[in-house]
This record gives sequence, C-alpha cells and structure tokens, in this order.
Amino acid sequence: MIEQLHGNAVVAQSGGPTSVINASACGVIQESLRQGVIEQLYGANNGILGIIQEDLFDLRAESADTIAGLRSTPSAAIGSCRYKLGDLVNDRDKYQRVLEVFRAHNIRYFFYIGGNDSMDTADKVNRLATEEGYEFRVVGVPKTIDNDLVGTDHCPGYGSVAKYLATAVMETGRDTEAMYTFDAVTILEAMGRNTGWIAAATGLARRHEEDAPHLIYVPEIPFSVERFLADVREVHRRLGRVFVVVSEGLVDEKGEYVAAQTDTLATDAFGHRQLGGIAEFLQRLVEQEIGIKARYNKLGTCQRNAIHFASRTDSDEAYRCGQEAVRRAVAGTSGFMVSLMRESDQPYRSAVGLAPLAEVANGIKPLPRDYLDVAGTQITAAMRQYASPLVIGEVPIRIGADGLPEFVRFQRQRVPRKLAAFIGRSK
Amino acid sequence: MIEQLHGNAVVAQSGGPTSVINASACGVIQESLRQGVIEQLYGANNGILGIIQEDLFDLRAESADTIAGLRSTPSAAIGSCRYKLGDLVNDRDKYQRVLEVFRAHNIRYFFYIGGNDSMDTADKVNRLATEEGYEFRVVGVPKTIDNDLVGTDHCPGYGSVAKYLATAVMETGRDTEAMYTFDAVTILEAMGRNTGWIAAATGLARRHEEDAPHLIYVPEIPFSVERFLADVREVHRRLGRVFVVVSEGLVDEKGEYVAAQTDTLATDAFGHRQLGGIAEFLQRLVEQEIGIKARYNKLGTCQRNAIHFASRTDSDEAYRCGQEAVRRAVAGTSGFMVSLMRESDQPYRSAVGLAPLAEVANGIKPLPRDYLDVAGTQITAAMRQYASPLVIGEVPIRIGADGLPEFVRFQRQRVPRKLAAFIGRSK
Repeated sequence: MIEQLHGNAVVAQSGGPTSVINASACGVIQESLRQGVIEQLYGANNGILGIIQEDLFDLRAESADTIAGLRSTPSAAIGSCRYKLGDLVNDRDKYQRVLEVFRAHNIRYFFYIGGNDSMDTADKVNRLATEEGYEFRVVGVPKTIDNDLVGTDHCPGYGSVAKYLATAVMETGRDTEAMYTFDAVTILEAMGRNTGWIAAATGLARRHEEDAPHLIYVPEIPFSVERFLADVREVHRRLGRVFVVVSEGLVDEKGEYVAAQTDTLATDAFGHRQLGGIAEFLQRLVEQEIGIKARYNKLGTCQRNAIHFASRTDSDEAYRCGQEAVRRAVAGTSGFMVSLMRESDQPYRSAVGLAPLAEVANGIKPLPRDYLDVAGTQITAAMRQYASPLVIGEVPIRIGADGLPEFVRFQRQRVPRKLAAFIGRSK
Repeated sequence: MIEQLHGNAVVAQSGGPTSVINASACGVIQESLRQGVIEQLYGANNGILGIIQEDLFDLRAESADTIAGLRSTPSAAIGSCRYKLGDLVNDRDKYQRVLEVFRAHNIRYFFYIGGNDSMDTADKVNRLATEEGYEFRVVGVPKTIDNDLVGTDHCPGYGSVAKYLATAVMETGRDTEAMYTFDAVTILEAMGRNTGWIAAATGLARRHEEDAPHLIYVPEIPFSVERFLADVREVHRRLGRVFVVVSEGLVDEKGEYVAAQTDTLATDAFGHRQLGGIAEFLQRLVEQEIGIKARYNKLGTCQRNAIHFASRTDSDEAYRCGQEAVRRAVAGTSGFMVSLMRESDQPYRSAVGLAPLAEVANGIKPLPRDYLDVAGTQITAAMRQYASPLVIGEVPIRIGADGLPEFVRFQRQRVPRKLAAFIGRSK
C-alpha cells in the first residue's frame, strides 16, 4: 500500500485557454479541498512562469462561490503562459528552481493543466524530483482545443470549440444562403495550426446536402490552389453558393504554409513581408481567379472561450479529469496525465485512465485519413460518430440582471515569498 | 372609416441578415394569416429582386411549425439581396415592373423588412402606385444591426448583435487577461461601416475598470494613429494588457478609411492594392510601433446571425414590428415604417409607432457624441442606459439530439408566373 503523502499542492494552467479549462481547475480545487492530506492549496500565476517566479496565490482564501463559478467562466482564471522549457541539460537551472520553490513551500502535489508542452515540463520536473529524492507527485490534466494529444480518446476543450464553431457555421451558412446573389462565398478560418480536428468538427453542421460547410480543408492533406479553385467552382455551379472552412495551418505539398507563399503578401512599413491569415488569402483568390464576391470570418480567440454555448459533455469531462488527477495523485500516482477513454458511443460513456507524461509529451495525433472522404473535403460517418457525442448539452452559465454572462475572478491573495528572485542562465 | 382592402400580400427581406429578421417575418406571416382580408400570402425570393423577377413562393403552403420556427432561425429565410434601385426617373422601368407584378397577382399589401435603402424602394413603389391609381398599401419593418435608422428609438437586430458581441468581448477579454505574458493586445473588429452603435455596445461588457474593452473606436470620431498608439501604450502600462474594439469603417480627419491609407496594403496578383480589415491593420501597427504581440478577431457575419445567444427583448420587438405592420396596413396605413418608441427605461417598455418611409429613406442616425466619454474611447452612463435594456433575455432555440441548433427552411412552393421575363433598360 502506498503511504499517505501529506503536504501542500499547486495547480497551474498553461497554453491557449479553452472554454472548460477552468472546469478542470474547479475539479482539482474542489477535490483537493476534500482530501485531508493536502494542506495548503496554491494557484501559480501564469503557469510554470509563476512557479519559477515564486508567484503563488492562496486558493483556500477564495470563496466556495468563486470556485464553483469556474465551471461557467471561460479562459484560464489561474493565469496561463506560453513558456516552453528545454531539456534537463540546457534548462536544468529552471527545473531546479521549480523544485527549490516546491521544497520552500512544502509542495508535494503538482497538478498541471495543459497540452503536450506542459506534459513535457511536468515529466521533467518529475524526473528531476526522483533524481534528487524529493518525494513528490505530479499528475497532468489534458487541455487543448486542438484535440491532438496522444494517449487520450479526445481532449477537454475540443467538444466545446466543436459545438460553438459548428453552430457558427450553421448560422453563417444561412447568411450565405440568403445573400448568394451578392456574397456567394464565405470562408471561415478555424484554429488548428497542425491538425484538422477543429475544422473537421464543423462538418457536424451539415445535416443535409445543401447545408454548410460545403468544403473543408485541413493541414493533414496538402493544399492545392488549383484543386481548391476547381472545388469552389463546382459547388458554386451546383448550389449557387459556397461555404468553406479552412484550418489556419494549411500547408502545400512541400509542407510550407499556404498563406506564406503568395503574391498578395503585405509589406509593412519596414519592408518586411507579413503573413496574413489563410482565410483572407483564399477570399482574395476566389475574387481574383473566379470573379465572384467572397467574404471571410476569423473568429480567433472567440472560438476557444465561447462558454455561452459550450458543450456540457466536454465541461463535465474536464471537471472529472481535474478531480481524478487529485484522487490518483493522493493514491500514489505520479508521472502520468489523466486521459479520457471512450467506453461506448451510443449511449456515449467515457472513463478516466492514465497515460505516461513522456508519451504525451512527444506525440501529436493527426486527424485520421478515414475521418474525411476520398476528396478530403467532407467528413465521413466515422468522424461524425467520433465527434458527435462530444458536443451534446449546454453548460449552464450565470447571466446578470444586465443580460450578460457573469464570470468569476480570483482575488489572488499572494503567498509570501521565501526565496530570492530567480536569475536564470538563459532566456 | 377606411374601407377594407381585400387582396393578396407579399413579404420580402432585404440587406444584411440579422438574428431576428425572421422573427419579424414570423410576425408578418402569422398576423397576415389571421387577417381575413389578406387572401394569398407570398414570399419574394431575394427581396425586391424576387418581385422584379416575379419569383414568388406560397407562404400558405408552409407548415405552422416551419413558420413558428422562424423565431429561432437566423438570417433571412425568405431570401435577401443587396440591390439598390435609383430614383423614379432613371429606374422607372423597374418600379413599373414591380407594380406590374403586383397587379398580375392582385397584390394589395407589401411588407418590406429592411434598412433605409429598402424603405426608399418601398416609398417609391408607394408613390408610383398612388400616381397610377393602384390601390395598394406598403408598410416597412425596420431591420439593421447597424441601428442607424432615423424615426425609431432603435432597430430590431441591434439588441442581438449587442448582446452577442459584448459577450464575445467578455469571453475573449478573459483570454487576453490569462495570456498577457504572451499576447498582450487583442483587437476585435465590429461591424458598422458608417456608425459606431455596434462597437459602442461592447462597452456594456465592462462592468469593472479592468474589464474589456479598454478602448473603443467608432467612425463618428476621426481616427488618429498617433493617439491610438498613445492610448494603447497607456492602458498597457496600467493593466499589462489591452483589449480594443474597432468599428470596421474607421475614418481619419479627411474622412478616408483608415485601413485604405497604409503602407501595409497588400498587392494582389494583378498589381491592385487590396484593402484589408482595420483590425488586422491595427494589429500590425501595434506590433511594429509598440513592439508588443497583438492578435485580432474578425467575427464577420457570425455577429449578425448568432441566434444561439440573441436578445429576447430584441426578438420579441422584431416580432411585434412585423405583426403591427400587418395590423396597420389592414387598418389603412401606407407609406410608413413601423418604429419602436421607448416609453420607459426602468422597467423597460416600448411601443410601436410609425415613421414616414421617405424620412427613414434619407436619414442616418449617428451615435450621439455624449454616448462616449471625452476621450471618445469609453461609453458613458447615457449609452449604458440606452443599450442595456435591449440585450435582456435569451431567445429560446431548438436544439437537436445531436447537440446543435435546428433551424427551419421554407419548402418554397413556386407561385406560377403570369408575366414575361423582365428585361430592364439598365443594370
């Protein structure tokens, strides 16, 4: 039997926010408060940066209402960052600093909610702790709208972006349908720098042949301008309008970003060529080459924070992942990320499992080729079966008397510093 | 007493769609079906174009369920257009064609849901009918997210775009707040080519000093690049992050579009200089001139079709406008647009009045200067008092077993043509 490990815990969030990363934080916090072995519970301002800078705040000082309100508050309430640590040789000073902060505050539990870079960081902290004999447990909680983590059936955050973006495609698809005599082509840019999971999810919006989206383009399939123009012409001839969804990270046969290799590149005031968005590039291409009016929508960060129409299934799973991370750590697990295992499609059921941090850290899961049809521009029944259960239900949100959502914000009672400021060797 | 006018009616939609223009159509249709004097009820495919082309469909053939479902279906289900008719001299052939179609189908009522161009068209059709002694009644129904029609306190469509966009600003404001160590500036581009009503409405999102949006820029106030950069620097210094909302149609002191006069203009494959979006322009400006990372969101048509988080107040008023248009026409009114009159702010109450079509046709209502503060970058209590009641409540939508909204679509049973095809003199 694993011995009980008494001490303090820290929870951190990392990378691009999602609609439900706070639901995971809520799961971690509420479960930690229930576990007697966890004494103090800290939040790290801005992910691993907050730990390195010993910038922690006291989560026990926050009200139960604030903590419960995390489930209806988008983005990363604890604070996030994009700060990639290198390996244990080159960035050893930073990993050692992390352990130094943990030792100074008797932190024995580390819950890191993030993507593969965060799992990589968590893994290395864990390895260094083992090397140095510091008794400590780290469990990762998966988070990414990109849905490209290995070791899990899907990632918390994905179901919500899928639901919101598919809905936006349904709504704006009707706009194109009403306005086809004027604006015949709409191009919607979806997030997804390396994988097409998000763009493909909008295929759920298409219940009938005539529904948007008519064409989907993902980074897993090399993009050809000629084929794209032929596709648009064909749909326009057939339906009189065209609704296109593109992943932001489309690449050509040589693996180069499509939006980077165009004659339409802007030159800025200093003579640098600027990379515009792919949707804008394709909009211009359609107008120039086909001669029909086109427009584009780039939802940007709106898509990853849309708690007002997030998936209940996704949010509940995000919460459960946070909760389970704490239970597993208290029971002795370290060096793993909790993962979601699909047990059944109809009715949909998932369970929480574990994946080694090192495995998650180094992998990326592309959209399977058979989730798209032969042409690669429509989803198949396999994709529908995979993604559909993830968008079921809506997250209840709090709406104020003014008709707008109410979100919570931590008061952030600072934990007194015990160490001198960190002066790293590099960066 | 006005004599009862028996005959057929046609309803048409025009211009950019909104989340609630179908609620107005629903009001027109359901009320027309209740009025004994209205015999056949037709929809015109794609606005005035459908009338000119004698392209009508039978609304009595649609199911009651489809018609009721209009209230939870965004965009223009009847079909819209952007087709501006000229004056009664130059485009006389087209206006005469409209009357010819009306005569051929015994159309005695015309309900046109649209903005000021549509009211202009309706007005001229009405004048020509009077000239030619064709007994006929036309009543306009206001529609525009831009909220810039004169003769009405506000326009159906505005409350919904305000609610959705303010919510998107709240949500993405939290994203900037979490990610400020990486992406410190977010710029959101709001619709509004000539007026700042939409951009200003996002000011409702700012309940506390630190909340987004921190800076709002509208077309009514000439834009200065230098002042913008100073504003951004000041907020960044104070809060560590900046959330900016800009109207798409910002102009400089000379009245020229800001996005048009930049060195960052792209040159397309044919050597033409392309006008990019203002948000993208400002994002590059911040990165180049201030040296902090910025990003932009351009929601485009998403903002005007977001029925999934539309305002109930707005939707109910849109319905009421449609319903009242029919009642007034049946009672003898012609040549007017129904309008919304505010009777009280707290509790909010509005009534339906009438504004002469000709007055609406030629006006545009800018955002009052005192709805913004002295600097012109924040809303005042006056704007809050004006806009706040318009975003209250949510429109109930139908959600399918697949977790996505369900919209209705007309089956469009074509009304047999009675005339030869129209061959106009121009266009």
